[in-house]
Amino acid sequence: MVGGGTTGFIGAIHLRAAIMENKAELVCGCFSSKPEVSLESGRYYGLPDDRIYTSYQEMFDKEMALPETERMDFVVIVTPNKLHFEPAMMALERGIHVVLDKPMTFSLEEAKALQQKVQETGLVLALTHVYTGYPAVKEIKARIAAGELGRLRRIYVEYPQGWLSERIETQSGNNAGWRTDPAQTGKAGCMGDIGTHAWHLCEYVSGLKVQELCAELNTFVQGRQVDDDGTAMMRLEQGVKALLSASQIAVGEANGVNIRVYGEKASLRWVQMDPNRLSLKSGGNREEIIHIGGNHPDLGKAALWNIRTPGGHPEGFIEAFANIYRNFTLTVMAHRSGEQPTPEMLDFPNVQDGVRGMQFIETIVKAGWNDDQKWVKWIE
Amino acid sequence: MVGGGTTGFIGAIHLRAAIMENKAELVCGCFSSKPEVSLESGRYYGLPDDRIYTSYQEMFDKEMALPETERMDFVVIVTPNKLHFEPAMMALERGIHVVLDKPMTFSLEEAKALQQKVQETGLVLALTHVYTGYPAVKEIKARIAAGELGRLRRIYVEYPQGWLSERIETQSGNNAGWRTDPAQTGKAGCMGDIGTHAWHLCEYVSGLKVQELCAELNTFVQGRQVDDDGTAMMRLEQGVKALLSASQIAVGEANGVNIRVYGEKASLRWVQMDPNRLSLKSGGNREEIIHIGGNHPDLGKAALWNIRTPGGHPEGFIEAFANIYRNFTLTVMAHRSGEQPTPEMLDFPNVQDGVRGMQFIETIVKAGWNDDQKWVKWIE
Amino acid sequence: MVGGGTTGFIGAIHLRAAIMENKAELVCGCFSSKPEVSLESGRYYGLPDDRIYTSYQEMFDKEMALPETERMDFVVIVTPNKLHFEPAMMALERGIHVVLDKPMTFSLEEAKALQQKVQETGLVLALTHVYTGYPAVKEIKARIAAGELGRLRRIYVEYPQGWLSERIETQSGNNAGWRTDPAQTGKAGCMGDIGTHAWHLCEYVSGLKVQELCAELNTFVQGRQVDDDGTAMMRLEQGVKALLSASQIAVGEANGVNIRVYGEKASLRWVQMDPNRLSLKSGGNREEIIHIGGNHPDLGKAALWNIRTPGGHPEGFIEAFANIYRNFTLTVMAHRSGEQPTPEMLDFPNVQDGVRGMQFIETIVKAGWNDDQKWVKWIE
Amino acid sequence: MVGGGTTGFIGAIHLRAAIMENKAELVCGCFSSKPEVSLESGRYYGLPDDRIYTSYQEMFDKEMALPETERMDFVVIVTPNKLHFEPAMMALERGIHVVLDKPMTFSLEEAKALQQKVQETGLVLALTHVYTGYPAVKEIKARIAAGELGRLRRIYVEYPQGWLSERIETQSGNNAGWRTDPAQTGKAGCMGDIGTHAWHLCEYVSGLKVQELCAELNTFVQGRQVDDDGTAMMRLEQGVKALLSASQIAVGEANGVNIRVYGEKASLRWVQMDPNRLSLKSGGNREEIIHIGGNHPDLGKAALWNIRTPGGHPEGFIEAFANIYRNFTLTVMAHRSGEQPTPEMLDFPNVQDGVRGMQFIETIVKAGWNDDQKWVKWIE
Repeated sequence: MVGGGTTGFIGAIHLRAAIMENKAELVCGCFSSKPEVSLESGRYYGLPDDRIYTSYQEMFDKEMALPETERMDFVVIVTPNKLHFEPAMMALERGIHVVLDKPMTFSLEEAKALQQKVQETGLVLALTHVYTGYPAVKEIKARIAAGELGRLRRIYVEYPQGWLSERIETQSGNNAGWRTDPAQTGKAGCMGDIGTHAWHLCEYVSGLKVQELCAELNTFVQGRQVDDDGTAMMRLEQGVKALLSASQIAVGEANGVNIRVYGEKASLRWVQMDPNRLSLKSGGNREEIIHIGGNHPDLGKAALWNIRTPGGHPEGFIEAFANIYRNFTLTVMAHRSGEQPTPEMLDFPNVQDGVRGMQFIETIVKAGWNDDQKWVKWIE
Repeated sequence: MVGGGTTGFIGAIHLRAAIMENKAELVCGCFSSKPEVSLESGRYYGLPDDRIYTSYQEMFDKEMALPETERMDFVVIVTPNKLHFEPAMMALERGIHVVLDKPMTFSLEEAKALQQKVQETGLVLALTHVYTGYPAVKEIKARIAAGELGRLRRIYVEYPQGWLSERIETQSGNNAGWRTDPAQTGKAGCMGDIGTHAWHLCEYVSGLKVQELCAELNTFVQGRQVDDDGTAMMRLEQGVKALLSASQIAVGEANGVNIRVYGEKASLRWVQMDPNRLSLKSGGNREEIIHIGGNHPDLGKAALWNIRTPGGHPEGFIEAFANIYRNFTLTVMAHRSGEQPTPEMLDFPNVQDGVRGMQFIETIVKAGWNDDQKWVKWIE
Repeated sequence: MVGGGTTGFIGAIHLRAAIMENKAELVCGCFSSKPEVSLESGRYYGLPDDRIYTSYQEMFDKEMALPETERMDFVVIVTPNKLHFEPAMMALERGIHVVLDKPMTFSLEEAKALQQKVQETGLVLALTHVYTGYPAVKEIKARIAAGELGRLRRIYVEYPQGWLSERIETQSGNNAGWRTDPAQTGKAGCMGDIGTHAWHLCEYVSGLKVQELCAELNTFVQGRQVDDDGTAMMRLEQGVKALLSASQIAVGEANGVNIRVYGEKASLRWVQMDPNRLSLKSGGNREEIIHIGGNHPDLGKAALWNIRTPGGHPEGFIEAFANIYRNFTLTVMAHRSGEQPTPEMLDFPNVQDGVRGMQFIETIVKAGWNDDQKWVKWIE
Repeated sequence: MVGGGTTGFIGAIHLRAAIMENKAELVCGCFSSKPEVSLESGRYYGLPDDRIYTSYQEMFDKEMALPETERMDFVVIVTPNKLHFEPAMMALERGIHVVLDKPMTFSLEEAKALQQKVQETGLVLALTHVYTGYPAVKEIKARIAAGELGRLRRIYVEYPQGWLSERIETQSGNNAGWRTDPAQTGKAGCMGDIGTHAWHLCEYVSGLKVQELCAELNTFVQGRQVDDDGTAMMRLEQGVKALLSASQIAVGEANGVNIRVYGEKASLRWVQMDPNRLSLKSGGNREEIIHIGGNHPDLGKAALWNIRTPGGHPEGFIEAFANIYRNFTLTVMAHRSGEQPTPEMLDFPNVQDGVRGMQFIETIVKAGWNDDQKWVKWIE
């Protein structure tokens, strides 16, 4: 692991998600650029001191010098966006598979470079767009693909949060600092941090790509250097219209990701904070609640593959995260044994999603700060 | 009453709402241009045959010839938009107060003419934007005005319906026909029918006016002549941003009007299909559910004035409608007795709201069918 | 009307419910034993002074002396339980139909006397068990009767309220006083006031009668003279088991009546504070939400007869009340014109329900304060 | 692990829960009495063949012969109730700590024997009453203990499930067989399997013990040999009344555990299928939703100790399970190092809870099948 020290919470989430299926274990880490934080974190996570490093370069070098059965197989990078590219590229160059937090990189150029390296090496790269790891989301995708909603027409996708309602980035003890600093986070604030999740959810479930968009970005908190709110009307392939909104100043909202997809025949709704229920509506105001659980007779293969419990035993965020890790791990294992991974194993966000995510940021930043041009074509 | 025969449901709703407080009664009506439908409807509503008319001109003339204590005091007009102006103007010219269904008229010009006539005559005109008749909505307005949310930042207002997901206007037995016929409904379909409700809710609760908007209108159902879906990013006074969406092709949705308002300190959410609850959220993911009821200790004067039952005894759509009627009736009674109505009595949508509603239609139609100009100023 | 002055809220509810369909009007009343309260209330409700009385005996005598087209057709009695029997019997003796608040009388003997008088006279008596007036409840009854749930097994019915959590009966300005005074309310407190509603709901939807029960009643608030909480395990016909709980010390609960009915094949759930939704569950954790509205394609005749609006336009407590009044009024009108009322018209709680309600009180009081005998047979 | 092969789902749940905090790992197992199932399961879980056993006796013997740093520290027993006691006692006799699924044993006598052995050896025994592992439940307990609800009055605890609505125990491929077989499951069916969870939840949050109860047990499915449904009125210490219902024939219900606790001042409600929300209600129909999350400013120490994510990132069943394992593991580690575990570490169901659970079964079986004696004292 690179980053993810015990001063934040996300490192421990990645760790739990990675080991949950007992198919991966933490063997080494460089958890912070501060040696004492890295050491303390590594010990807390149960590592021996000689596998706790203070630079990722050192880690990669020493690990690759170990016998193949002992050394790291993949690296998890959970640093600020500015520090994604270098360790990821370094890992790929040494033959190490990579798990990256989203957005994939600081800039679109870096993303394309990673994409090229992945293509050259054949290594596996996963991006933790966690919300598409939920089985309910996979069920939406499958039902849309099977035509259950009919031809799609309209999508609403929202991601409201309230934690940046005040200028907390000037305080310490939270991770608002780098997320609102353009030098570390990149061109977009809210849209990079959570707008990309909303966009990914939209393209993932629909199977359709955004072609152009009209947007408005806002910075409501005085003194902040990046957007903290925004909305976009998006035109997807096949004439589908989507409305995306993301905000970090929606005071009182914890983590309200949700999506509604309307087709000609039926619609589906999912709300992340109530993740094990889907609402399926159709003509005549008919509504069905689909309870996500391993014993539900109507669920498809993709959802079932990613469910651990029978209905009524709620799974949540960590399990969604673990689905990405499990599928990634199985793909890595197939890679190692020379087998072809199944489509279910390959169902995790990859380097192509990462490149498109950076293109989304480019496009929405251009569209959102511009009062003259209404529609901006997707920036490739 | 003009229109509102028993072939539709809305006439009976108006009647129930008008008489609920035992302060008004139905004395006459012209329920349809078809004599037999008008007669049958009038009899069903309990009128004697001599107070059932087949033209509103006849009705106004004969009624005004009756003694003052017997004749009609106000007229309720529930015809298609195209037929709002003429009977309304005719009534005002004869000294009869008016209740009109929204949108107020077929065109902005007609709306301005009505406004001028109301100003000249001092008569009372009410517009049945029913959703702002709910006590919960009045509570939102009062709390915002009192500064409980802090300075406002962002509003989301939605009105999803699904009943026009198919081209039912070609069938008989529903009222989709005139609502999708530009010759009867006016420039806008969905935006005139329900978009105006969403817009009114937004301006009513915030107390702020829309200044410009960027919109996209859509017609998803092939062959339809008006918009059946649309979204708008709206810029309100004081830098507030609002996102409005309205759709009649949101298949499976019954009547999902809802609004969320975010200020610097707190936010409020209301969903019309669950009308007696407000969610008040603030920092730290704190949430309070405000149960609307006459005995709730925290509700303000405006809400309490419009509540009939203690908490837990749900009020609904007809009561919201009845609030408009009650306040209108009390204002008419005050008018008759030469007294000044209280602010609570005057709290119903009036001719100014009607003119702004028509301006909203003008503006969103211009913005929504236009790919070049991003922001369109409010059309006065 | 007898009782129902403007010092309480329930008189106005009865009035709105009675007139909502424009089939009945308030013509006279004796709203209080205090002349000035009666006069003030009558004037507020719009009555002329000569139809406002200070005793019901005077009212009945003077009204029956009026011409048949002018005088009262039925009386609404909304006094404390102790004052139900005398005015009701007096009205029946004079040929006046009766609407009574529940429980029907102070004692079971009075109830049986009313029953006999109704049978002798053929007059109509309605009891305002309002919760069975909701269309959703009628839909449950219809689906059970049609076998959609399969053979019934178990019912849970609850009625939690919190308004008597403290000893407010010692204060003025609320109606806790008579409700907790055995001399006015009868043998039971909570079980008479709201337990009877829960019991009625249970027998109404299932179509099955309670045969014996095992109960515990409690008085949690010190100094209170009647039960304020209780639970009962009930054995119904056909081996169905029901669990009833009612409480007025469930602090924070407004008016949480709800019922769940489980059959062999499916189950239904209704919650009064969310009255326009039914949850239908069946094997495999399948769940359907049935949105109550006039345009829902799956609703039965009984529900549709009692619905006024299309889906998504919420109806509530006053409309449920108005359903009892409408059906009662139509039955009275049929009675007057010598026609046979339809089954839909006759669908309101009547004198038989009133007698059974008093038997329920007798039975649960005996069972609930008794630690020795486990099961107590229904007291006829 | 004893039991928990890949033919069921619960073994994998225990494994994920045990390893989630990276403080325990699976080192050996005897997953089935069928050698091939045990081998296949062990390999699936990633064990080398020499640590996969076919009898627990063999496992205990061979493991204890390994060096201390290699051998098992604790055993997880997830077999049918009949097979709890023997392996548990065997482990305790060899100095191995134990995790047991509930109910603890087949009979009360076995439970008391285990309790004595635990007291003698000082070893740690945890019982997986998973629902009290949820942070929301710990928050309820803490708020009650702190007096936030005032003196308690009434508790409702429910556990409805529907999976045994039909006689599926005669089919293979489900685990209904042993659960409905008195020779394997013990005296109680539904009440042993899920009633004990409901009872435990009630005593855990209130801190009060049941003293006597009045119950009715039912067997609705023909041919079934144990109860599949039941209700109990329970009298707790300090005059608190509780109503417990549990059913496995509540068709359509997945796993609806929920509890409501009413005190003099306020009440709390928790629903397991929506586990990250608490509803706190108080006078005047006020309601607060407490969103369980690591950053909520109002949560107590016990809840925070058991939370992994910030608000809006749902935790679920596996995390609740993992809380039991984490606290157990930390207690075992403290035991090994001779330190005193903190109260937070000791917060898991232990052998005393196991004995009381068996006493609950004894008491409710006696009360529930008995029509003569109303109240049955807690059987020690």
